[in-house]
Amino acid sequence: MRRVLVTGGSGFVGRHALAPLRARGFEVHAAARRPPAFEPGVTWHSADLLDPAQSRALLAAAQPTHLLHLAWTLPPGTYLEAPENVPWVGASLGLLDAFARQGGQRVVAVGTGAEYTPAAELCVEDATPLAPTTLYGACKDAVRRVAEAQARLAGVSFAWARLFFLHGPHEPPARLVPSVCRALVRGEPALLGPGTAVRDQLHVEDAGDALAALVEGGLEGAVNVASGEGIAVGDVAQRLGRLAGRPDLVRLGARPGSPGDLPRRVADASRLRDGLGWKPSRTLDEGLAATLAWWRAELQRSR
Amino acid sequence: MRRVLVTGGSGFVGRHALAPLRARGFEVHAAARRPPAFEPGVTWHSADLLDPAQSRALLAAAQPTHLLHLAWTLPPGTYLEAPENVPWVGASLGLLDAFARQGGQRVVAVGTGAEYTPAAELCVEDATPLAPTTLYGACKDAVRRVAEAQARLAGVSFAWARLFFLHGPHEPPARLVPSVCRALVRGEPALLGPGTAVRDQLHVEDAGDALAALVEGGLEGAVNVASGEGIAVGDVAQRLGRLAGRPDLVRLGARPGSPGDLPRRVADASRLRDGLGWKPSRTLDEGLAATLAWWRAELQRSR
Repeated sequence: MRRVLVTGGSGFVGRHALAPLRARGFEVHAAARRPPAFEPGVTWHSADLLDPAQSRALLAAAQPTHLLHLAWTLPPGTYLEAPENVPWVGASLGLLDAFARQGGQRVVAVGTGAEYTPAAELCVEDATPLAPTTLYGACKDAVRRVAEAQARLAGVSFAWARLFFLHGPHEPPARLVPSVCRALVRGEPALLGPGTAVRDQLHVEDAGDALAALVEGGLEGAVNVASGEGIAVGDVAQRLGRLAGRPDLVRLGARPGSPGDLPRRVADASRLRDGLGWKPSRTLDEGLAATLAWWRAELQRSR
Repeated sequence: MRRVLVTGGSGFVGRHALAPLRARGFEVHAAARRPPAFEPGVTWHSADLLDPAQSRALLAAAQPTHLLHLAWTLPPGTYLEAPENVPWVGASLGLLDAFARQGGQRVVAVGTGAEYTPAAELCVEDATPLAPTTLYGACKDAVRRVAEAQARLAGVSFAWARLFFLHGPHEPPARLVPSVCRALVRGEPALLGPGTAVRDQLHVEDAGDALAALVEGGLEGAVNVASGEGIAVGDVAQRLGRLAGRPDLVRLGARPGSPGDLPRRVADASRLRDGLGWKPSRTLDEGLAATLAWWRAELQRSR
């Protein structure tokens, strides 16, 4: 029996990996500090992985053959430089060590496009220099470097999934797509900068499915989990406006741009596509429409 | 008052940093799991730094303005790939975080020449690629990457001392210089490989003094702590033979060479020399003679 443990299983990305893992025949265990129990067919474990004793107890209880490690603390708005990143370096390495010791076979752990140098417009695994300029990027990069050596010595199969820009249910509300969706649902104008920055956008449910495919597949090393296509931030906002039937509410240029923003940041997704045989199951408009519908329902629920 | 805390203060290198720090006017605190209390004028603290609570309690007790972090677990013979390296990544980062929070001003933490790519014959900070092939090298490299980001955000001055090949009192007995010294003192032949590998050799008391100078000085970033001069391993052994008056006991070529050994591994020491104004206080022969004398006394003590 293949038994996968998903850490951060209730998070923005983790929750969308559970069903795809079940669909691939895994017995799915998921860990969170406060398990939500919203997913049928998933065995939930309550654990604070910053406590090494709880981490070891979790592995002893779940006895996973596969590990998808997503847990991390990302304070909304400040996560790039938050000191909360640092304890996750040791906690992640301790978890991987305990997983290997109890006989685990394959790990997929989650990194970030922020590991690549900000100078790169196209980020290619094993080619683009790794030169993170944020604490978040440095911590993820450090985990990958040690974890690869750990996995090599322990004979564990290891892949490192670098996530780029994601949108979908449960994204922190202050970010681009949620803020535009919320304005549109409320019938209020979405006041934006020039919107010329180009980003790689992927629907979070596709990201969850790609991670499940990566857990199942044997691909090792770093893998960008991304669409591989660049789209201007303003184009994303205008598509949401059209999908909501209110293109007039999207006001590009109403605010100044952020001078620190990189003009273009896109992932090379050919390892994911050719190496793993995975591609997104929905178009950008389908993903944005689903996200808009979720925010509409969410705002109605919270009324 | 400048108050320095030396972690790993009873170790091979740490013990030799204590007197040079006192000589530079620091109030010296030192931590070890089992404090030896062999150094006058040093306040010893008993602490296992792999326990975050003990680490925080140590900093609260010592209240250092400066930190020299040397503590690490190096199982003799196996340290390059030992799993004991891994917990020190999180422990080191936690220590630095706690140091910054209690108002610490400057950190010198200790790395290794093994962070540089094995392809480099001359290792230059900020120029030679960092591509460690061992778990030890990967763990040290990872600490440096995160610690630099932590220090930047906390406003703490940070230097990273990369140690190369050291000899002197208390070196693990199976290593080159101790094994030759022990054979010579016993009047037994020292059976060696061809001895053609060239290494950077520094006496450990000079390394301790260089670290003290680095703690006091303001130099930031990576700094090789090394002699900057290459010497063949066989030449080191023959010098020891001559110093002991028994050159006949040094048998180069009596054993096969180690195929994995790098032919040449020397540090560029110009940052240490020109940036910090430090150079070794003894010649190679003076350092080797002192080391030989120490082993002679040590073997008499243990009789």
